[in-house]
Amino acid sequence: MNILITSGGTSEKIDQVRSITNHSTGQLGKIISEKFLEAGFSVTLVTTPTAVQPKAHPFLTKVFINNVAELQTVLEKETPTHQVLIHSMAVSDYSPVYMTGFHAVKEATNLEQFLHQTNQESKISSEEDYQVLFLKKNPKLISLVKAWNPDIRLIGFKLLVDVSQDQLLSVARASLEKNQAEMIVANNLSEIQDGKHRAYLVTKDATRIAETKLDIAQKIFHHITNKG
Amino acid sequence: MNILITSGGTSEKIDQVRSITNHSTGQLGKIISEKFLEAGFSVTLVTTPTAVQPKAHPFLTKVFINNVAELQTVLEKETPTHQVLIHSMAVSDYSPVYMTGFHAVKEATNLEQFLHQTNQESKISSEEDYQVLFLKKNPKLISLVKAWNPDIRLIGFKLLVDVSQDQLLSVARASLEKNQAEMIVANNLSEIQDGKHRAYLVTKDATRIAETKLDIAQKIFHHITNKG
Repeated sequence: MNILITSGGTSEKIDQVRSITNHSTGQLGKIISEKFLEAGFSVTLVTTPTAVQPKAHPFLTKVFINNVAELQTVLEKETPTHQVLIHSMAVSDYSPVYMTGFHAVKEATNLEQFLHQTNQESKISSEEDYQVLFLKKNPKLISLVKAWNPDIRLIGFKLLVDVSQDQLLSVARASLEKNQAEMIVANNLSEIQDGKHRAYLVTKDATRIAETKLDIAQKIFHHITNKG
Repeated sequence: MNILITSGGTSEKIDQVRSITNHSTGQLGKIISEKFLEAGFSVTLVTTPTAVQPKAHPFLTKVFINNVAELQTVLEKETPTHQVLIHSMAVSDYSPVYMTGFHAVKEATNLEQFLHQTNQESKISSEEDYQVLFLKKNPKLISLVKAWNPDIRLIGFKLLVDVSQDQLLSVARASLEKNQAEMIVANNLSEIQDGKHRAYLVTKDATRIAETKLDIAQKIFHHITNKG
């Protein structure tokens, strides 16, 4: 069984010196990777240059990406040759389209024009007191996975902030169904700190609770290997 | 002589899970720090958690910051007790103020309202195809340094992208004068790659060229210690 794991957070460039980054240390993806490697599985880890990395292992292949477009290219290529995808990467929802000074936006008669412009300068000038950045939604890669490999077993992740447990579980169940996932690991940023990492592992039939990253990794491992 | 060095790149939060980050590995600040430490100077290094770090040293004090507001607090406190500031950190020019969907902006009669709003949600929703982020200029900390310590010897940095050497040197000379700096280290992103790092060390009387990070660190060191 070949395991495909994504880990870390993507970055989308504003220009050559600035990016919008989704925070993720990659620690959870590292621990999940190590769990499967120790048990003798082949792991392909799609990660970023700044994420923490598992130790080198003969069954580990790493592929580095920076942004959503690169992640899409890699996942489209890799999903058909893997039986499981554990998609723990924090993926940018939006990518910068165009940045300009506030006055240009204020004086424009048609704001749509800015959705189709591109900054020509490599480092956007910083003279005005206010700037405006237009962003475009990225494709939701998790919803494309089953088109690339209908048989892949998909484990998705959902991170929300300051929501009730009911809301979190409701969002997780909707994602489970929409993306034809086998499990959604739902977590609340306020419950991740000081070595603790509470997560709700939502499947069609049950919701299990894990309290640390290692606990999450072990529960995912058992789920995959017991049913696999 | 106490040396204050800044290194790495600041990040400004959009919400709890996303930031705008200025790219900088911190490699140059690390090398400059090591150069002064080896020669027996006390170094206070202001850096970020993700920047590369010098090895531990009995004369090294590290202070960690994430964003421009924290950097300002630290520099205001530290400059009066240091004789030299080498300000190699990549500092964010702008901080996010408010992010909202494109339609809300399009339908607003007065865009200024968005410059005074704050996102209440901890993770901004990602439903609309386009979003708009309003940003506010940060204070230029380099221009405040002499108010905090008129006697401090200031070395500033200027990174531009895809400009001619004439433009770069002209911007460096303007910065030298405006910020009452003793030297501006000017560099062009396209001349930093594969172990090479060309920089123009601009002082009132001369412009010296360095070709690697170590060369930059050595030339700064000699400048400070020969005149000091």
